[in-house]
Amino acid sequence: MKGSPIRRLVPLAIAAKKRGIEVYHLNIGQPDIPTPRSFMEGIRNAKIDVLSYAPSRGIPATIDALIGFYAGMGIELTEDELRVTIGGSEAFVFALQATCNHGDEVLIPEPFYPNYYGHALMNGIKVVPITTRIENGFHLPPMEEIEKLITPRTKAILFSTPSNPTGVAYTRDEMQAVADLALKHDLYVISDEPYRELMYEGEAVSILEFPELHDNAILVDSISKRLSACGARIGMLVTRNRELMKSIDKLCMIRLSAPTCEQLGLVSFLNDPHYKDDIAAMRTKFHSRRDTLYKAIQSIPGGISRKPEGAFYVFVKFPQLDDSEEFVKFMMNDFNLDGETTMVAPGAGFYATPGVGNDEVRIAYVLEEPKLIRAVEVLKAGLEAYVEERQRVATPTG
Amino acid sequence: MKGSPIRRLVPLAIAAKKRGIEVYHLNIGQPDIPTPRSFMEGIRNAKIDVLSYAPSRGIPATIDALIGFYAGMGIELTEDELRVTIGGSEAFVFALQATCNHGDEVLIPEPFYPNYYGHALMNGIKVVPITTRIENGFHLPPMEEIEKLITPRTKAILFSTPSNPTGVAYTRDEMQAVADLALKHDLYVISDEPYRELMYEGEAVSILEFPELHDNAILVDSISKRLSACGARIGMLVTRNRELMKSIDKLCMIRLSAPTCEQLGLVSFLNDPHYKDDIAAMRTKFHSRRDTLYKAIQSIPGGISRKPEGAFYVFVKFPQLDDSEEFVKFMMNDFNLDGETTMVAPGAGFYATPGVGNDEVRIAYVLEEPKLIRAVEVLKAGLEAYVEERQRVATPTG
Repeated sequence: MKGSPIRRLVPLAIAAKKRGIEVYHLNIGQPDIPTPRSFMEGIRNAKIDVLSYAPSRGIPATIDALIGFYAGMGIELTEDELRVTIGGSEAFVFALQATCNHGDEVLIPEPFYPNYYGHALMNGIKVVPITTRIENGFHLPPMEEIEKLITPRTKAILFSTPSNPTGVAYTRDEMQAVADLALKHDLYVISDEPYRELMYEGEAVSILEFPELHDNAILVDSISKRLSACGARIGMLVTRNRELMKSIDKLCMIRLSAPTCEQLGLVSFLNDPHYKDDIAAMRTKFHSRRDTLYKAIQSIPGGISRKPEGAFYVFVKFPQLDDSEEFVKFMMNDFNLDGETTMVAPGAGFYATPGVGNDEVRIAYVLEEPKLIRAVEVLKAGLEAYVEERQRVATPTG
Repeated sequence: MKGSPIRRLVPLAIAAKKRGIEVYHLNIGQPDIPTPRSFMEGIRNAKIDVLSYAPSRGIPATIDALIGFYAGMGIELTEDELRVTIGGSEAFVFALQATCNHGDEVLIPEPFYPNYYGHALMNGIKVVPITTRIENGFHLPPMEEIEKLITPRTKAILFSTPSNPTGVAYTRDEMQAVADLALKHDLYVISDEPYRELMYEGEAVSILEFPELHDNAILVDSISKRLSACGARIGMLVTRNRELMKSIDKLCMIRLSAPTCEQLGLVSFLNDPHYKDDIAAMRTKFHSRRDTLYKAIQSIPGGISRKPEGAFYVFVKFPQLDDSEEFVKFMMNDFNLDGETTMVAPGAGFYATPGVGNDEVRIAYVLEEPKLIRAVEVLKAGLEAYVEERQRVATPTG
């Protein structure tokens, strides 16, 4: 099974640490910023005698609070249009299961979040990649090209914006073009927007802003990133399509409920009058880190990258790399700079197209800035050492 | 989609309450007993700065504590053999997905927990029911009969013991016969044992007690019932089959992790020297309720039931019932005794075989005893009124 190269390589980092090496983890999507106090206090102070199942749709107070949250971004929802899920992952799986049958196809711009691929595979759904290129800033190709990929089995187009792994945020024009295409071919648009508040340039456009997609739009969302609460396992699925929601509700019912305590934590967070300040502080921090990391990366010879508009990732091409997974293994097994090494995520795991991405890596800016700067120094040295090592092996001696 | 008749009827109870009727909920598997203090304190006192993803296999301290828990029931496990899941539900889904492909078949004794059916359907897996009968105490039929149901596509036999919805616990001889059959046909045995500690007669035999099933046994487990912590969403999957566990690990990775706080709550609970007392107190309480409920049910004319050995359900046949789902609707919409009514779960939802179970209901003993007694009084009166009403409608006037 493809996907999850990030977690697959984790044991190598563990082994490196056992040898006394310090590892800078720029390979993961786990922010290091403290979870807002109001969220944790909501969990700690909840008056729970019997920790019972939450309603399968979500706790009413949580749904109410989330409706207020979306209203704050100009999106009016009713309680019939939103479900609380076990992380964004479950919302995504529900979206796939409710829109596709076994053997159906979904279009996904690549590079993509690898778990999309894994979940589609588990559900017998074929991923048809729309290849995007670093040279175009990972923006979508012309719709005529995407249209060529549509078959009678195509049920949905799916993406994250701002994107994991590239940080690209689709423009309003791009989203409009996708909406038009979806309507023309009656496709669902599944838009995964957990990084929406982490935007540093331009605007984050939500799929829910297109009223013509009333029956076609599915928002997948999560508190994991904007609250630095990945371990809460709280996500959301939003659709205005009532028939589709009936299918979603069946899926909600058979898995019983999302965790109760964390739903109460979310109520506490969203009822805190300063919650927008907490999110803004997170955005400010990542904005500064992005600038620092992006500048640092420019010091690595040969690197091709684009300044990401949002999220907390930079996707970088190093043409000198033959196989970035081998490079990551080298960094973990064979390299250190004064006892330190840096882990990044190899690029090929973010593509469905075979052979693409071997000269690319994803770098997450989930550490404080001095560490980011040092991690890139170490990465730069490692890259030089790796290329030298490959040339040495490839050159016949005599 | 079949399954979940219990939750489907919930809106009727809500409507009844809005009309001022008190509803005794004997239809649900949600215990009313307080969650152990040590569990909730583990959540409240956890030192969490960043609420990060837990490792996809489970938090090491949680896995260690669970290994100790299983050792306490005589089952020795290593950390490679146990995964923490998002409730027993996820463990069950993982077991299905790791053992079956689309179009494969699983054998399930019916009546069964309805969500088995829903999850199998979602994964394109065919449920082949092994019909068991109230007259035989819902024990398994002779293995020769089960053997006739096995086809080249049969991959697993799956059951809960002690059983939801019948309370039957399979005997050691029965489990041995299943083990022999599974080995003969190389089937997996998926045993769902969340009620194992809630046994009142005889012994709860775990599938892990059969060493010959080393590669074939999968234990699905959960803390929901024995800790009265359904809303924690913490379950476990155990298998000694290392190849199978590799597939399970891929499933664990793509869904990221089970909730962090509740895993820490479980560590706190299992590290409390008195945790066995908490579980024993729960067992004692349900034991007494079982006796009370079972005795009360005998007062209803025509009822056929068996005293359940474990769990907290009684499955009852009322031959005077033509359609127990209609009866439940009647109880919610058209009946009350001094402002009170009782909700039970209609039997047909627990069967895959069409037309079976229409004269049966599942009654959960999840209320204090005085309420159980009153709930059965109300049920008895409602049953009389329903039968009378049906006869009135069926009898031509003139």
